[in-house]
Amino acid sequence: MFCEIVARRVDGHEVVRADGVVAFLDRSPLFIGHLLVVPEEHCETLADLPPEDLRGFFEVVQRLQSTVMSALGAQGAFVAMNNVVSQSVPHLHCHVVPRTKGDGLKGFFWPRTRYRDELHLSETAARLAAGYQMLAGGP
Amino acid sequence: MFCEIVARRVDGHEVVRADGVVAFLDRSPLFIGHLLVVPEEHCETLADLPPEDLRGFFEVVQRLQSTVMSALGAQGAFVAMNNVVSQSVPHLHCHVVPRTKGDGLKGFFWPRTRYRDELHLSETAARLAAGYQMLAGGP
Repeated sequence: MFCEIVARRVDGHEVVRADGVVAFLDRSPLFIGHLLVVPEEHCETLADLPPEDLRGFFEVVQRLQSTVMSALGAQGAFVAMNNVVSQSVPHLHCHVVPRTKGDGLKGFFWPRTRYRDELHLSETAARLAAGYQMLAGGP
Repeated sequence: MFCEIVARRVDGHEVVRADGVVAFLDRSPLFIGHLLVVPEEHCETLADLPPEDLRGFFEVVQRLQSTVMSALGAQGAFVAMNNVVSQSVPHLHCHVVPRTKGDGLKGFFWPRTRYRDELHLSETAARLAAGYQMLAGGP
């Protein structure tokens, strides 16, 4: 579906097209001006984006954070990617959502859970650190 | 507060420290293994991160998406940044949250709103495109 917008076969209400990145309006927005940023070259999740494309992709995202503030008068921006779970379209898309204090988008970071104790925290950190080192190719 | 963790004056249950980026456990997690990724050099929001640091920062983030899947058995990951509004600490931090189908973290992308009509969509896209071009330094 997003490839159709990238290829201009569907009108996506495009806002930016530069350096292999396209940004357009989400048609079912959280708030007016809610944008989706996608790489032209199809990839499924953030982990699948070639590292050399990260800067270009997130330069557009960071400029759009500033844009929703300057062009729409938003006070801030929520920037988010659902990868696999809750990901409605299997084409990497980064949401840039204009935020205003009191806009009602609270509570999405709840409920929180708790670690049982310090040991649970330490063990979880160690497991993740070991997993990361395996992916990163050693310490 | 995050600068205290970066400087190791507070134990942050660190998972990664590499290339000017530190990742550690959120002590009040959405789900066990919920990580925060911060730049060592203090900056407030995504828009304030120097563009030359974007690749290094998001390489850590994308590897952590893979890590929560490989090390914790998550099916996916939610990657998000609150900028200004809902941002509890004014030091850029990217959440990497392990996700599993049916984990209960639904509904955070609701309620959705609607554009009045196609014109409302087009006008919003045009205003954002003009604002972006001003920031990007012309077409």
